[in-house]
Amino acid sequence: MTHQDPNINETFDLVASDMVIGTNVYDAEGNSVGEVEKLALGKRSGKVAYAVLSFGGFLGIGTDYYPVPWETLTYDESVQGFRVNLTKEQIEGAPRYNPNDDYDWYEGGRTVDDYYGTRPYTL
Amino acid sequence: MTHQDPNINETFDLVASDMVIGTNVYDAEGNSVGEVEKLALGKRSGKVAYAVLSFGGFLGIGTDYYPVPWETLTYDESVQGFRVNLTKEQIEGAPRYNPNDDYDWYEGGRTVDDYYGTRPYTL
Repeated sequence: MTHQDPNINETFDLVASDMVIGTNVYDAEGNSVGEVEKLALGKRSGKVAYAVLSFGGFLGIGTDYYPVPWETLTYDESVQGFRVNLTKEQIEGAPRYNPNDDYDWYEGGRTVDDYYGTRPYTL
Repeated sequence: MTHQDPNINETFDLVASDMVIGTNVYDAEGNSVGEVEKLALGKRSGKVAYAVLSFGGFLGIGTDYYPVPWETLTYDESVQGFRVNLTKEQIEGAPRYNPNDDYDWYEGGRTVDDYYGTRPYTL
């Protein structure tokens, strides 16, 4: 977003899912800290509620999956990836799950919204 | 998911992207006619605008990719997949692209919305 063409209305700005899933996630200093593993979206609404991030190998955080509200991510054209507006401390305390386990998106989503102070998708 | 709790409001009904991408698409008669190849979503809004379907091997339509408005898909719990509310005739005349080519989501999206009579995502 830092160098985005101001003539392009942001609502026009579509991206294919295969350019989102697997893309790098950068911190505020521009360091690649993780990647987008998957998205959780409303079956009917088609609205992405959560992006599921992994930080394994970065931040020393391990291989768990971290669902974060979509609005904590901002797309940055200059790096063709997402920036995550979260501090290391926020991530360290954040809700997570083992990728080998099932995840309850209903209860899990409530926990995620509580943690980040975001408006629950489910309301 | 086949025995989903009826007390769960449909807006709670999240699905992980890896359960959408690659899932079968069924016609009105319950025949598997294609699959969801990818999604096109707003980078900032997180709203899925188009699902990209393939019908190769079904309908005799070949291997092109067909972007369709998200609202033409309905999730069917009983088959754990999407139904596509389009006739074979609609699909045969529909906008498509070669998966080996780049796709212009802005112009392409307008064409898709024109064809299906859907409200342009870009408005």
